[in-house]
Amino acid sequence: DRQAQKAGQLFSGLLALNVVFLGGAFICSSISNSVALTLGDVWVLLAVLKALSLLWLLYYAAGTTRRPHAVLYRDPHAGSIWVRGSLLLFGSCAGCLSVFHVGYEVSHLYCESWLELIFPAIEIVFIGIQTWVLWRHCKDCVQAQGNFTRCGLMLTLATNLLMWVLAVTNDTMHRKIEAELNGLMDNFSGNDSHTCLCLNSTGCQVFQKGYLMLYPFSTEYCLVCCAVLFVMWKNVGRRLAPHASARPGTPPFHLRGALSGLLLGLLALVAGVVVFVIFQVEANGPTIARRYFILYYAFCVALLSAMSLACLAGTAIHGLEEREMDTVKNPTRSLDVVLLMGAALGQMGIAYFSIVAIVATRPHELLDRLVLAYSLLLILQHMAQNLFIIEGLHRRPLWEAAAEAEPPRGGRSHSQPELGPGQPPASPRASIHSNCHLNWKRRALKELSLFLILCNITLWMMPAFGIHPEFENGLEKEFYGYRTWFTIVNFGLPLGVFYRMHSVGGLVEVYLGA
Amino acid sequence: DRQAQKAGQLFSGLLALNVVFLGGAFICSSISNSVALTLGDVWVLLAVLKALSLLWLLYYAAGTTRRPHAVLYRDPHAGSIWVRGSLLLFGSCAGCLSVFHVGYEVSHLYCESWLELIFPAIEIVFIGIQTWVLWRHCKDCVQAQGNFTRCGLMLTLATNLLMWVLAVTNDTMHRKIEAELNGLMDNFSGNDSHTCLCLNSTGCQVFQKGYLMLYPFSTEYCLVCCAVLFVMWKNVGRRLAPHASARPGTPPFHLRGALSGLLLGLLALVAGVVVFVIFQVEANGPTIARRYFILYYAFCVALLSAMSLACLAGTAIHGLEEREMDTVKNPTRSLDVVLLMGAALGQMGIAYFSIVAIVATRPHELLDRLVLAYSLLLILQHMAQNLFIIEGLHRRPLWEAAAEAEPPRGGRSHSQPELGPGQPPASPRASIHSNCHLNWKRRALKELSLFLILCNITLWMMPAFGIHPEFENGLEKEFYGYRTWFTIVNFGLPLGVFYRMHSVGGLVEVYLGA
Repeated sequence: DRQAQKAGQLFSGLLALNVVFLGGAFICSSISNSVALTLGDVWVLLAVLKALSLLWLLYYAAGTTRRPHAVLYRDPHAGSIWVRGSLLLFGSCAGCLSVFHVGYEVSHLYCESWLELIFPAIEIVFIGIQTWVLWRHCKDCVQAQGNFTRCGLMLTLATNLLMWVLAVTNDTMHRKIEAELNGLMDNFSGNDSHTCLCLNSTGCQVFQKGYLMLYPFSTEYCLVCCAVLFVMWKNVGRRLAPHASARPGTPPFHLRGALSGLLLGLLALVAGVVVFVIFQVEANGPTIARRYFILYYAFCVALLSAMSLACLAGTAIHGLEEREMDTVKNPTRSLDVVLLMGAALGQMGIAYFSIVAIVATRPHELLDRLVLAYSLLLILQHMAQNLFIIEGLHRRPLWEAAAEAEPPRGGRSHSQPELGPGQPPASPRASIHSNCHLNWKRRALKELSLFLILCNITLWMMPAFGIHPEFENGLEKEFYGYRTWFTIVNFGLPLGVFYRMHSVGGLVEVYLGA
Repeated sequence: DRQAQKAGQLFSGLLALNVVFLGGAFICSSISNSVALTLGDVWVLLAVLKALSLLWLLYYAAGTTRRPHAVLYRDPHAGSIWVRGSLLLFGSCAGCLSVFHVGYEVSHLYCESWLELIFPAIEIVFIGIQTWVLWRHCKDCVQAQGNFTRCGLMLTLATNLLMWVLAVTNDTMHRKIEAELNGLMDNFSGNDSHTCLCLNSTGCQVFQKGYLMLYPFSTEYCLVCCAVLFVMWKNVGRRLAPHASARPGTPPFHLRGALSGLLLGLLALVAGVVVFVIFQVEANGPTIARRYFILYYAFCVALLSAMSLACLAGTAIHGLEEREMDTVKNPTRSLDVVLLMGAALGQMGIAYFSIVAIVATRPHELLDRLVLAYSLLLILQHMAQNLFIIEGLHRRPLWEAAAEAEPPRGGRSHSQPELGPGQPPASPRASIHSNCHLNWKRRALKELSLFLILCNITLWMMPAFGIHPEFENGLEKEFYGYRTWFTIVNFGLPLGVFYRMHSVGGLVEVYLGA
């Protein structure tokens, strides 16, 4: 049984690998030699892959509803509420992006071929059906047709991955819109240009602005889909022990005593919203005045300093605590830690590239110094926060310790984690006692994690809803060139948004466990 | 204890991550904006990192010899003979490369600054000392100064990784030598050019040829060092159980009955050597005639077809065998499987890029069709061979089963792998009996794996000793442009050489276990 499972995983993994390689070679060719292999060929390949994935998704949804024995178990850890929520949010935004794309092409129909309409239309159908299927089935542990299901899941994952690679590297639409905006301006000043302009100016501007604003969401969406599909692939053929759901429920979210953390965090959140609105209102013009950049970066520097201090203080308190570490293997937690570290790479990469660009050009302006400080603090904050969250996730929560120390009621004896000699398990009375009276360390941890939750939401909101000063301030764009910096930012920013969401999830667990 | 170990691993991993990001941003900047940040800055950064790593390596070597309690255990799985052998081989080749580099710079001293001499000189010292330290200490499980040792190892690993990234992306020396060869030719025909030419023509040509031929070895060397340093890092603070070395020794390598596999394999090897010599002799001129490319690719197509058939047949025989799978967790084997899959990505990537280039240009010549067939067969062969080796590694060897079924002599009871109900362990008499008389399946497996070992050695020899038709045939170079194809080939080929070596190691285990 286990042997067949391993072989199926290996085979479907090789299938996905080949699809990704083929698509990657296509995309790379269309970039480096756009004569022999055009972007249209890449779109055709992706459309074929999307059609195949769609057929499989529909077959899967129909098959699992018709055969009731196909899904006997559902993984309680998979598809948590924030994953499904972000799937829905990003899915609807990515759908809107495609709608805007269609609208843009329709308003250019007089000078472009109607074939350009097909690909965004396919994309709309694909995103809609995929979101619906993943929303319903993300917890499944499928038992029927294991190998076929694995291959289908891997094909869909490879399609999403290729969509992500294309979205990260393909800047033609951005260039087109930028050329059009410039062309429009030249037109007003009397020049004649060869760019294809809209007939209906207001509708077109809505499509252009909306496209630029919603663009990051589609890359987010592909990443979230890949994560969900990977978990489903791991769960194919898995049988859960019946006592898996007998785990004591997490305690409800109480704001016990963490008042100053809440107030400081709310303050940061409100200030962030104010900065966001000012920046967004001013960003309507073609160029943003320097003082708004200074405002934005100064706010971020202040916020990141406070967050770094909070994370370092929290890590220090974790070190002082006497509760033992939970060293039992836990696959869900391992995946959490890997995702946290992996997603942090995005913003850290951007920060390092910024630092090198600024140091190499040796500027003396205030804005450049602010960007430098911002980049350095960003790296520090990511590392400190990762340490804090990982330390927190490895503490054994008090309610679990209390539940374990109770005499087991059923016949089944719990698999006790190994305790060192001379370290008796805490008596239930003591741990329940400590659960009611928070000592100063646990209170401080609660305050700090609540503050960090609100700060992370603030920092999540800004790039998620369309502020991209990294791209608009022009410093690095000039240094690295348009295409390189476009790729770096489009690679890093969606990972950064994902990181903020994911660390809010981790911090909530730290808050509850403290 | 385990908690401190995890924290140390996390901290040193973050250190390496930051160093790699900083260096990566430097290298990327020097490529996309070579005015503000020159290649010289990258060399200075690398020289600093090399100096720090050197200091640490010397401290480590001195510290472990002075304190006898620092290394109490040695990991028997780490640093096997082929790893240490390739470390020594590639290390000496990389050293020679730097010597040629120095020689090249010396013969150009009249028109370049003597500062160019410093960096290759540092590299020679670094490679020499690193090879010596890693050769002596690759099996260590260090117990003293855990966190400092982890940081030092990670710093050295990051340095090697950056050297690899630079070697893969930096083609300035190649361009310089190519320009010089062209300049020399123009000079003969009477033109005057601005390139800096050697004074001593014969010595210079030796340096140029040697540099181009030895270049792939330095990338190999960095990869092997990274693998060894990673294993050492994992082993810091590890305590081995005393019975770990009580495992029965592997049986000696006998050529029992695998005669036809041996003969066919030797035939392939001899044919490969002939093709290699012909190609190498002809490759002395500036351009290689088309018919030698056709000879090379035709030979490879024939060989790869035979290998693919052998792998598929072997996988089928594995499926027929009744021996049960070994599903116990085994970290060394997991690392083997991951390395096998990861190293296969190199050649598969090159093959996919070739396929896309050939299909997009739609040529009708014999050579292009041969390259297409070669690329397709390469992908098929890598996948089939990976399946064959992984299946073979997961069979429980007969001698292990026999040793386990014996009554345990010491008081310690072996941790028996879980056997299914109704599946009694094979009696020792039966397995020893089957060990002496090979049935047809085991005989066929031995024949196939011996044939594959010799074929892999043939395919290893050609790129390892300087045949790079992928780069010289010009088809893909024209399609993708010089720099892109240089990066792809330099990324893929060293991984491909590593893959051949590693699969020989895996196939020897399959041969012994069959």
